[in-house]
Amino acid sequence: MTEIYLDNSATTKPTKNVIKAINKTLKNNYGNPSSLHNKGLKAEKILKKTRKLIAEKLEVSSNEILFTSGGTEANNLALKGIAKSYKNRGKHLITTKIEHPAVLNVFNYLEKNGFEVSYLDVDENGLISLKELKNKITNNTILVSIMHVNNEIGSIQPIAKAGKIIKEENKLCFFHTDAVQSFGKIYLNPKKMNIDLLTISGHKIHGPKGVGALYFKDKIKLNPLILGGGQENNLRSGTENTSGISGFNAAVKKLPEFNQKSNFDEKINELKNYFLQKLKVNNDKLPEFKINNLLDNNGAPHIINLSFPELRGEVIVHSLEKEGIYISTGSACHSRKKEQNNTLKAINLSEKMLNGTIRISFSAYNNKKEIDYTIKKLIEQLDFLSI
Amino acid sequence: MTEIYLDNSATTKPTKNVIKAINKTLKNNYGNPSSLHNKGLKAEKILKKTRKLIAEKLEVSSNEILFTSGGTEANNLALKGIAKSYKNRGKHLITTKIEHPAVLNVFNYLEKNGFEVSYLDVDENGLISLKELKNKITNNTILVSIMHVNNEIGSIQPIAKAGKIIKEENKLCFFHTDAVQSFGKIYLNPKKMNIDLLTISGHKIHGPKGVGALYFKDKIKLNPLILGGGQENNLRSGTENTSGISGFNAAVKKLPEFNQKSNFDEKINELKNYFLQKLKVNNDKLPEFKINNLLDNNGAPHIINLSFPELRGEVIVHSLEKEGIYISTGSACHSRKKEQNNTLKAINLSEKMLNGTIRISFSAYNNKKEIDYTIKKLIEQLDFLSI
Repeated sequence: MTEIYLDNSATTKPTKNVIKAINKTLKNNYGNPSSLHNKGLKAEKILKKTRKLIAEKLEVSSNEILFTSGGTEANNLALKGIAKSYKNRGKHLITTKIEHPAVLNVFNYLEKNGFEVSYLDVDENGLISLKELKNKITNNTILVSIMHVNNEIGSIQPIAKAGKIIKEENKLCFFHTDAVQSFGKIYLNPKKMNIDLLTISGHKIHGPKGVGALYFKDKIKLNPLILGGGQENNLRSGTENTSGISGFNAAVKKLPEFNQKSNFDEKINELKNYFLQKLKVNNDKLPEFKINNLLDNNGAPHIINLSFPELRGEVIVHSLEKEGIYISTGSACHSRKKEQNNTLKAINLSEKMLNGTIRISFSAYNNKKEIDYTIKKLIEQLDFLSI
Repeated sequence: MTEIYLDNSATTKPTKNVIKAINKTLKNNYGNPSSLHNKGLKAEKILKKTRKLIAEKLEVSSNEILFTSGGTEANNLALKGIAKSYKNRGKHLITTKIEHPAVLNVFNYLEKNGFEVSYLDVDENGLISLKELKNKITNNTILVSIMHVNNEIGSIQPIAKAGKIIKEENKLCFFHTDAVQSFGKIYLNPKKMNIDLLTISGHKIHGPKGVGALYFKDKIKLNPLILGGGQENNLRSGTENTSGISGFNAAVKKLPEFNQKSNFDEKINELKNYFLQKLKVNNDKLPEFKINNLLDNNGAPHIINLSFPELRGEVIVHSLEKEGIYISTGSACHSRKKEQNNTLKAINLSEKMLNGTIRISFSAYNNKKEIDYTIKKLIEQLDFLSI
């Protein structure tokens, strides 16, 4: 049966080289990286190599990269870690209203535990106001966390400018960015962007689930979340997920190269634009819809977010599923829950629009033929559903 | 080259069926378990199936099993989770002096954060005194954590008796067991043993690294460590490591069946006894040594711990490594560190003995031929080193 996977913001399909790397580690390099013998050293080499590779990709040092069980843990470690270590400096924190739950729920927790949190608004396009950010920073602000790319509507926050403002207003204030949706798709350079801590994840870039990493600027004191054998420089104990990390390595190797000029994934962007163009061309064959993602350079190359006010998102998802096409309603990470979506509420989508929202997200391994097929089936199914 | 892996307490080699299961998940079931569509449901099925399998193995309910990134995280979640949730009941905690760092360091942390911790002594065989345990429990004690099998010397704590005593002395007190070294090797039944929380790990039973599980008795309130999308019933957020969990599943499937009568892995025990017998037979060909592990039913079936007072453990490890034989000095999880070993100190091993300690740990996939070869090489190498 046809299988067209267009839910790449939720998770991605591991590539062949990723699976091969994982296999090799499981078969041959199964030692414990902490073991004294050669089997241990070989396992440790996987960590070293991958740390170096990610560091090079981000133009940071190897000792500034630590491995976690995924993006969520990296976010928790960064935010709780800074809050706990630097609480004597101040108790004010800033984030946005459209963060992923792995950030938002940590701030809610910190708010209940003695910290004051400012949640930045976003406009109808899901973009923060740099003016509001500037106004909110005080001498008591110890941490600002702003996601790079929103997982729902793909809005790209002006993190380089935000970083500059943060350091100008309060040079002791730390800046964290959840870059899970942007790493590998958009130019990222923590040092140049004044980012002190940055979260990335393996399974959003065709690596395996269960592995992520945190960049944290040299000399930052992080209070560890998980204590034990002292792995990861005493910051994250527990035997490292070596096979997962080798898969992460293979996934990072396949990522395109960016720089300040060619700063995003043109290939995926072309797929997105092709899809949008096909939507436009077939406008009269489709029920009423609204495009929620930004169409200019402030929109991520891989995310399309559409609202069909006369339909329900989950019904569309299931009707396409029957055709072997996989897309999403809200954020996949909590889409099985009945909770409403923070981002879509924050951009002031009406209840009707909100309930009729679908997200289509691309990877470099999709192609135009798949899009043609998806558009065809979308028209057929929506036509049927609209009767 | 010969490869004889006798460091199975540090980590184990994934079996073929484990690698196959991981591959299948990476290739076909790569969806996000939280996704609404069929790809998500298939991924969620992996979690459900594995939860059920582990629950059946432990004779508990599926809703009492939650997945973590490994044994260390499960220990942290259990201990910090209980301490935080029930601190209003009392601030006294009990553990032993020979716990794994993933337990001991959490207690050290809790001690610095307002809790009082009693650390139980062990005798020269590494066994706690049930009388001391009984005496230490007060109305303020909210948690006792006692490991099942020690990772260094294999001493098996009387956890069933401990569980009974704990509940008799203070029925509100929770009992946690780190069963990372015993799960799959020794009979375990949390309900019958009055264990409220129990930690297991995938990579110690020929599964992959990066996955573990926590049994926690129904209705226990656990304060989560990692917040976010609300996975694992809101107790452990983050996209689940589905490929790791499918490998865990395959590993659990291969574990032997135990019951109260046939309550440990006879096959591994036979290997251990065979090794010990060979040591005895070759006693005059070997330099002076002391056996630190218990030889009776209080000793784990898979661990041998030897001290050569005239030699250094790491030198022995490296000399056997040259022959393709992998063993360990101290605990592998922190053996690359220069810290001294808690367990060996707690059993009052002299400095000289301590520095000359090696650990040989078996799995069901070792065989007698490997042991013959290891004994032969041990004699040769130690003879050379003792000159």
